[in-house]
Amino acid sequence: MLSEFELIAAIRERLALAGAPRVVPGLIIGSGDDAAASDRAGATVVSVDALVEGVHFRMPPFEPRDVGHKALAVALSDLAAMAAEPREAYVQLGVPEDLPDEGVLEVADGVGALAGACGIAVAGGDVSRAAQLFLAVTVVGEAASADSLVRRAGARAGDLVAVTGELGGAAAALLTLERPELVRALDPVVAERLRRRQLDPQPRLEAALALQRTGARAMIDLSDGLGADAAHLAAASSVAVRIELEALPLQDGVREVAAAAGLDPVDLAAAGGEDYELLVALPPEREEQARAAVERLGLELTVIGAADAGAGAELRSAEGVRPPAGFDQMRRRVRRSSE
Amino acid sequence: MLSEFELIAAIRERLALAGAPRVVPGLIIGSGDDAAASDRAGATVVSVDALVEGVHFRMPPFEPRDVGHKALAVALSDLAAMAAEPREAYVQLGVPEDLPDEGVLEVADGVGALAGACGIAVAGGDVSRAAQLFLAVTVVGEAASADSLVRRAGARAGDLVAVTGELGGAAAALLTLERPELVRALDPVVAERLRRRQLDPQPRLEAALALQRTGARAMIDLSDGLGADAAHLAAASSVAVRIELEALPLQDGVREVAAAAGLDPVDLAAAGGEDYELLVALPPEREEQARAAVERLGLELTVIGAADAGAGAELRSAEGVRPPAGFDQMRRRVRRSSE
Repeated sequence: MLSEFELIAAIRERLALAGAPRVVPGLIIGSGDDAAASDRAGATVVSVDALVEGVHFRMPPFEPRDVGHKALAVALSDLAAMAAEPREAYVQLGVPEDLPDEGVLEVADGVGALAGACGIAVAGGDVSRAAQLFLAVTVVGEAASADSLVRRAGARAGDLVAVTGELGGAAAALLTLERPELVRALDPVVAERLRRRQLDPQPRLEAALALQRTGARAMIDLSDGLGADAAHLAAASSVAVRIELEALPLQDGVREVAAAAGLDPVDLAAAGGEDYELLVALPPEREEQARAAVERLGLELTVIGAADAGAGAELRSAEGVRPPAGFDQMRRRVRRSSE
Repeated sequence: MLSEFELIAAIRERLALAGAPRVVPGLIIGSGDDAAASDRAGATVVSVDALVEGVHFRMPPFEPRDVGHKALAVALSDLAAMAAEPREAYVQLGVPEDLPDEGVLEVADGVGALAGACGIAVAGGDVSRAAQLFLAVTVVGEAASADSLVRRAGARAGDLVAVTGELGGAAAALLTLERPELVRALDPVVAERLRRRQLDPQPRLEAALALQRTGARAMIDLSDGLGADAAHLAAASSVAVRIELEALPLQDGVREVAAAAGLDPVDLAAAGGEDYELLVALPPEREEQARAAVERLGLELTVIGAADAGAGAELRSAEGVRPPAGFDQMRRRVRRSSE
């Protein structure tokens, strides 16, 4: 077993081998001093997110590398939702006794590979013993100015509400990871894409910048579930957000998994959460430009509703209106937004 | 039991009631969006630190309020060690099932009171279920420029090495908290001061700025233990740091507790860690000015050694030289710096 400082040294080495840069724009002091330091002209954007074993993931099906990837991805997704460019990450790691040093280094592989892909430095962190594996991640990003950030507030009545990519995949995958028989009818490529959506979500950093440049008025990432996140955006913007459930772009395989499980696929897309796509409010005249900009990145942009005068989020289908829902981290169950 | 969002709302309220400001210089977007944002002219300084129940503290003797205070204090101590001015904190909280909501809010009281005393905003965070209570804290500070930060590197052969305040108190207090009979011989005021040193350490933020202004060349905070931290400073500065153990300023009561426990009080001061004082390297001609500046803050500055050509930290007494030691978080035991 490595000592604390040996383990930290080995983690740093694995982060670099996995591709995490040591130098990024503006970073003056990186890992190894009492604190890191940067000097940048624009606005500094900070977000934190934690993944806890047994709450946010289980091993298996998660491998240590997936845990590292996902912890950084969900934190970066919050920077994307502001249209900030990511620069640095800080990782605080809780390590249970039964996770061998090599498992810890595989967590670092997952962090380092995504950091490399996004061009960000891991500029600090620590390790500690813990009863369960946890990663508490801090990400620091940059924007040209505070005015260029896209907040949750800013949507206006009459705006279109759109979503990047596809929904329901993360929730469907969670079902198949818990009940492998649900995946038998699926094309193996489709099944594997579902699985990667849950294990290795991709933060929509470039799509967020494209949406900001084409006039996004408000934005949030879909972590809690479309219904809950639409309610957050509605509350911050003092508008009503009306979502047409028939319009939701379902990921391939979601209908099949829902059918096999006896569930409504729209529930997986609207309440499941963890898809880490972007929900954006746009002036209607910007729709074509925004769609084209997102398509150039290989993603779809789908209009799923609109902002109106009023309050709250409303999920509508031919059968009527349902209340928005999301996952409650404290009660470990789906919550209704009225709670 | 409160839901996740209700708990977050209640935490925000308690942070404000405890005195944490919502507005601090440069903070543009505080808690409540996908990320916080700031716009500041100088360098941005970031550090992270986690406290985990059963590893860094036990309850009792720690009350939830102490845990909140200490988690923020140890993170701020790293900003102090850079001579940065603190601006914001982000708190990620893991909450075990057996900690009632009121306990969580008392943790927030501890965070909020110290945030208020230091004039910093709690600009973000999250809560999650966990097997044990943990706080993963991120602190963001500011300095006029990157050049005004005091790093671990920078000490030169011939510099004095000095320490703020008094040492050994945190380690002696830990002994008395585990073995209350050790404290019977102590004056109750002295015993209580020891106890507060362990439960409620004070980050030396103002002393750090005073030392920076009077020409500090290198600085580190004493978290791992004087021996281990002196070795870090020596390695970063490419000098040898020689500490005279007879010169260590022991906190009142440390000798008595050590005697009752059959230990050497110097070991508590040199290897115990958690005193969160500052170890600083200064040009000899700045000694009087630095001492006076620190004394104006009600603290002592004690010269305990010097930097020489060479490498490593050397702890010397009349009996000879001992290797530097610190606490290994992964092996849960005192480590030697040669590990």
